Amino acid sequence: MIDKSALDALWIMIGAVLVLMMQGGFLCLESGLTRSKNAINVALKNAFDLIVAALLFWLLGFTIMFGQHDAWSLDLRWLAADFTDDSLWHASFFLFQLTFCATAATIVSGAIAERSRFQVYVLITALISLILYPTFGHWAWSGAINPTSGWLEALGFTDFAGSTVVHSLGGWVALAAVIVIGPRTGRFVQGKPQEIPGSNLPLAILGMLFFMIGWIGFNGGSTLEFNEKIAGIIVNTIISACAGGMMAMILSNAEKEKVRSTSLTINGTLAGLVAITAGCHLVSTPHAALIGAIGAFVMFMTDRLMLRYQLDDAISAVPVHLAAGIWGTLAVALFGHLDALGEPFSRFEWIGIQLIGIAACALFVFPTSYLVLQLLKRLTPLRVSLDAEHQGLNFSEHGARTELSELLSSMQEQERTG
Amino acid sequence: MIDKSALDALWIMIGAVLVLMMQGGFLCLESGLTRSKNAINVALKNAFDLIVAALLFWLLGFTIMFGQHDAWSLDLRWLAADFTDDSLWHASFFLFQLTFCATAATIVSGAIAERSRFQVYVLITALISLILYPTFGHWAWSGAINPTSGWLEALGFTDFAGSTVVHSLGGWVALAAVIVIGPRTGRFVQGKPQEIPGSNLPLAILGMLFFMIGWIGFNGGSTLEFNEKIAGIIVNTIISACAGGMMAMILSNAEKEKVRSTSLTINGTLAGLVAITAGCHLVSTPHAALIGAIGAFVMFMTDRLMLRYQLDDAISAVPVHLAAGIWGTLAVALFGHLDALGEPFSRFEWIGIQLIGIAACALFVFPTSYLVLQLLKRLTPLRVSLDAEHQGLNFSEHGARTELSELLSSMQEQERTG
Amino acid sequence: MIDKSALDALWIMIGAVLVLMMQGGFLCLESGLTRSKNAINVALKNAFDLIVAALLFWLLGFTIMFGQHDAWSLDLRWLAADFTDDSLWHASFFLFQLTFCATAATIVSGAIAERSRFQVYVLITALISLILYPTFGHWAWSGAINPTSGWLEALGFTDFAGSTVVHSLGGWVALAAVIVIGPRTGRFVQGKPQEIPGSNLPLAILGMLFFMIGWIGFNGGSTLEFNEKIAGIIVNTIISACAGGMMAMILSNAEKEKVRSTSLTINGTLAGLVAITAGCHLVSTPHAALIGAIGAFVMFMTDRLMLRYQLDDAISAVPVHLAAGIWGTLAVALFGHLDALGEPFSRFEWIGIQLIGIAACALFVFPTSYLVLQLLKRLTPLRVSLDAEHQGLNFSEHGARTELSELLSSMQEQERTG
Repeated sequence: MIDKSALDALWIMIGAVLVLMMQGGFLCLESGLTRSKNAINVALKNAFDLIVAALLFWLLGFTIMFGQHDAWSLDLRWLAADFTDDSLWHASFFLFQLTFCATAATIVSGAIAERSRFQVYVLITALISLILYPTFGHWAWSGAINPTSGWLEALGFTDFAGSTVVHSLGGWVALAAVIVIGPRTGRFVQGKPQEIPGSNLPLAILGMLFFMIGWIGFNGGSTLEFNEKIAGIIVNTIISACAGGMMAMILSNAEKEKVRSTSLTINGTLAGLVAITAGCHLVSTPHAALIGAIGAFVMFMTDRLMLRYQLDDAISAVPVHLAAGIWGTLAVALFGHLDALGEPFSRFEWIGIQLIGIAACALFVFPTSYLVLQLLKRLTPLRVSLDAEHQGLNFSEHGARTELSELLSSMQEQERTG
Repeated sequence: MIDKSALDALWIMIGAVLVLMMQGGFLCLESGLTRSKNAINVALKNAFDLIVAALLFWLLGFTIMFGQHDAWSLDLRWLAADFTDDSLWHASFFLFQLTFCATAATIVSGAIAERSRFQVYVLITALISLILYPTFGHWAWSGAINPTSGWLEALGFTDFAGSTVVHSLGGWVALAAVIVIGPRTGRFVQGKPQEIPGSNLPLAILGMLFFMIGWIGFNGGSTLEFNEKIAGIIVNTIISACAGGMMAMILSNAEKEKVRSTSLTINGTLAGLVAITAGCHLVSTPHAALIGAIGAFVMFMTDRLMLRYQLDDAISAVPVHLAAGIWGTLAVALFGHLDALGEPFSRFEWIGIQLIGIAACALFVFPTSYLVLQLLKRLTPLRVSLDAEHQGLNFSEHGARTELSELLSSMQEQERTG
Repeated sequence: MIDKSALDALWIMIGAVLVLMMQGGFLCLESGLTRSKNAINVALKNAFDLIVAALLFWLLGFTIMFGQHDAWSLDLRWLAADFTDDSLWHASFFLFQLTFCATAATIVSGAIAERSRFQVYVLITALISLILYPTFGHWAWSGAINPTSGWLEALGFTDFAGSTVVHSLGGWVALAAVIVIGPRTGRFVQGKPQEIPGSNLPLAILGMLFFMIGWIGFNGGSTLEFNEKIAGIIVNTIISACAGGMMAMILSNAEKEKVRSTSLTINGTLAGLVAITAGCHLVSTPHAALIGAIGAFVMFMTDRLMLRYQLDDAISAVPVHLAAGIWGTLAVALFGHLDALGEPFSRFEWIGIQLIGIAACALFVFPTSYLVLQLLKRLTPLRVSLDAEHQGLNFSEHGARTELSELLSSMQEQERTG
C-alpha cells in the first residue's frame, strides 16, 4: 500500500494532529488572558468544546457537510458512521475535518468568557457543530469529496483553509454572543474600557506558539493531498504570522500605554495566521508578509472600534477571527495568481465573488446565532449572577477552588487568630 | 529507499514522537492536580521517570521483552545495543517501544504523589522498566519481531496497544503502592474523604489535550506498519475519548457537589482512551463510543469504591488505568469483529482468553510489587516525614522554594515590621 | 509525485515542526526559571525572537547562508524570496533552516533575562539572524545545496546538526552579553552567588520535555533526507539526553544543598542533547550515552566556574549551549566512526579539524558580539533601571501587571481599611 494515496492520507493525518495542537493553543491563550478566578472554567470549556464538537460532528455534522444532498432529501450516509469500515483516505479526511469543526466551535467561547454560563458555551458549540459550520461548509467545500460542488464553490469562491468558512464563521457567532450577553461587569466604566489583566501571559504566549505549530497542519493539510505546493504554503503561513506579530508590536508601541503590547503581539500573530488562511496556496511569499501585516492592522483597528462601542470580547476573538478573516478572504482576490485558476474570470470579478462569500457567511451566521441567543435569553439567563461573576466562574460553575483563593482565606484566618 | 518499510518506519517514528507528548500530558495532569507545594516534586518525578525508564529499557528491558529466550538462557542480543548499527525499521521499533515502557513506568507515580519519597518513585520505575513490563510484554507482544510468540499471544490474547500490557500493569503497581504507602495526611478525616484542590487545573486540562494528541501515536502507531486501518483506529480513539469525557461530565453533574466535575471530566476522557486501547483495531466507531462511555463509568465507580476503602490515589490513576484498562481488554472480546481474527474461536472462548490475560497481569504484577514495597518499607521509610509532607515535597525533597511561599514569608515580614 | 524526494521533503517538514516545539521549550524553560515579575517579559521575548529571526532570515539571512557567493559578489538569489515558486524540497529546506536560525537566536536571551532591555534582545536577535549565524553557517553547511562547500566543511569539519554552528554560536553571544550587561542585582553578595528561585519549575520541566521532543526533529531532520540512519540518530539523541539528565541528578545530589537539583537535572538533559548534536550520526548508542553524561558534567563544571567569576547567566545558557556544544563537537572526533567518512584523515587530524571549527566560531562570534554590545552600551543603556529591575520587567517593559502583584496591593488595601 505504498502509493500516492498512502502519502496523502499520512499527510492529512499529520495535519489533523497539528490542528489538535491549536486546541491547546486556544486553551493556553484563553485561560492565560483571563483572570485566575475564571481560568479553570475557561480551560474546561475549551476541552469540553472539543468533546461536544467531535461527538456531534461525528453523529450528524459530517454527513450534513459532505453528504451529496439534493433538493428533496438529505444524504445521511455518514450518520454516526463506522470509519473503520471506510478507506484509509476517507477516514483520514473525516479526522481532518473533525479538527476543523472543533476549531470553528471553540473560537466563540473565549469572546464571552468570564461571565457566560457553561451551558451557553455547550449550546453554542452544538449550534456550530450541527448546523452553522456544516451548512456553510457544504456551500464552500463539499466538492472536495463529491462530484458536485456547493453553490459558493461553483461560483468560484476561494477559501483555501477557511479564513471565512472556519474563522469568520466563528467570529460572527462570537460577535452575536458578545452583543447579546453583554460586557463583563466593570469592563466599561462611564464608557471607558478598563484593562482587565490576564492571569498568565506566559501561558498565553505559549498558546501563540501552539497556534503557529498547529496552523502548519491547518493550512498545509488543506491541500488534502501531499503535493508540490505544501512547503510553500507553510512558508507563507509562518511568514504571514510573523509579519502580523511584528506589525502589532509596532502598533502597540505607538500607543500611549504599553499595557496591551503583549496581548496585541499575540493577537497580531494570530491575525496574520487567519488572514493568510484563505489564500496561502495562491499568493507569493512577499505578498503573504503583506497580507499578514495588514491582517494585524485590521485586527488592531477592529479592536479599537469594538471598545468604542463597548463590545467586550475577552480575548479579541472578533478582531482576530472575524475581521482578519474577512480581510484574508478579500486578499486572495487582490493578490492571488489568477492563472492558477485557469483565469475563468477577471480580478475584478474575483473580488465580487469573494465578497459574495463573505456576505453569505455574514447573512447566514450572524442573524441565526443572534436570534437563537435572544430566544434562549428569554428562557434562561445566559450569564452567571453578579455574585458569581465577582466570585469567579471556577467556583460558581464547577465548584473549583484555587490555591490563591485558599491562600487568601487562610491569611485572613491567620490575621484573625494571630 | 522508498518502499513500504520506509513508510512503516516513518509511521512508528511519528508514533514515538506523539507518545512522548503523553509524557507531557502526565506532567501537566499530575502537577496540575496536586498542590503547589508538591508540584515541582511531581513534575521532576515525571521527567526523571522518563530518564530512568529510557536508560534501563535500553540497557536491559528491551532485550528481556523482545529477546527470543528459551528455557535455558536469556537472549541478550540487545543488551545496551547499538541501534545505529541496526536497520531503520528495527531502530524505529525500539524507539516506539521505549516510549511505551516510559508510559507504563510513569502511571504509578501520580497515584502516590504528595507523600512518597523521590527514591521510591525511582525504584518503582526501575522495577517496571526492568522486570514487570518487559516480562509481561514478552508474554503478550514479543511475537511482533520474533518467529515465536509469548504464551498469552499464542493463546489468542488480544491487547492491541496495551489496555492491559501498559495501563492495567501500571495500574496494578499503583494500587499496590497506594495500599502500602497509605493516604496523604488529612485526606480522610473520620473516614470521610476531604477534597484536596489541585494547584493548576488549566494545566491539568492542557495535559488531557496532550494525552488525546499523544494517544493518536499510541494507538495509531501500534499497527507497527502504515496500513489501511490506521485512520479508523485514530477515529475510534478520539471518539471513545470524547464519549468518555461526555459520560464523566454527566455523571459528575449528577453528584451533589460539583467540586470534582473538572477532574472527573479529565479522567473520564482518559478512561475512554485507556478503554479503547485494546480493541481500537477490531471494533466499529459506534462501539468505540460505547466502550469509551462505559470506560468512564467504570472509572467513576472505581473512584468511589476506592474512597470508600480509604485508598488515596492522588490523580485517580487506578480508576483510569487499571479499571478502564480491564474493561477495555474485556470489551475487545465483547465487541470485536471475530472474523478479523479468522474466527479461530467463539466469542465466548474469546472472553475467557481475555480474562486469562487480565488475571495473568493481576497475579504477576500486583503481588510482586506489593511484596517489593513491603520489603522495602522495612529497610527505609517510603514516605516523607509528617513535617515534610506539611511543608511540601518541593522543599523537603529538592530544596526548591516557590514564589508563593516566598510571598507568604515576605508578607509576614511586612506585618511584623510595618 | 511519490518518489524519494517527496519523502525527503515530508521528513524535513516534520523536522521543522518539531524544531518549532523547541521554541516552546525555550519559552517554558526560561519563563519557568525566572521570577514571576519578569516571566511575561521573558516569554514575550522568546516569541518575538522567533518573529524577528524568521522575518530577517527570510529577507536576507538565508541567501547569505546558502548563496553561492564568490569573492566579488554576494549571491542574493533568495533575497525575500518567493518560496511558493520553488520546488517542494527547496521550500522545505528553507523552512527547516528557518527554525534552526530561530533556535540560534533564542539561546542568548535567557542568559541575560531579568535585567536587559527588550530592545537589546531584539538587536541581538537581528545580529545573529542577519550576520553571525548565516556567515558561520555558510562556512560549515552551505555545501548542502551548493556545488561547492564553505571552508570549514571543505576542511572536513563535522557538525551534523549544530553543536557548534547553532549552540556554541548562540552560547558565545550569550557569554559576551553576560559579561557586558552584568549580573542581576542581588545575584552576588560579597562575591557569593545568591540563589534566585524560578517562578514555575513545573513549566521549566515541561520545557525540558518539549526540548526532547523537538530535538528529534533537530537531529533527525538534519539528515536532510529520509534515510536508513534516521532512527539510530534519534535513539542516540534520546539516550544521550537521558544520560545527561541522570549524570546531572547524581552530581546535584552530591552537592551540599539540594536547591539546584531540579534546574541542574533539566540542564543536564539539555547538555546531553547539545553534546550529541554534532555526532549523533557517527557514534554508537553506548558512546552516545557516554557523550551525554560527559556533556552534563562539562555543563556542571562550567556552571560553577561562571559563578566563581560572578558571571550571571539566568538559565545557564552558556554551560548548556556553549560548553556542552564544544564538548560535543570534539566528541565527534573522539568517538565517531572514521570509516563512515571514507577515512580521509586520522583520528588525530580529525581532532585538529574539529578544534579549528571550534576556534573559528569563538574567534568570529565572541569578539564581534562583544564589540557590538560595548559600542551599543555607549549609545544607550543595555539594562533597565535599578527601580525597574526591582519592580520587574513585566511592568517596566510591557506595562503588564500580574495577578500576584494585584493581589499584594489589594491585600495592603485590606490591611489599611480593615
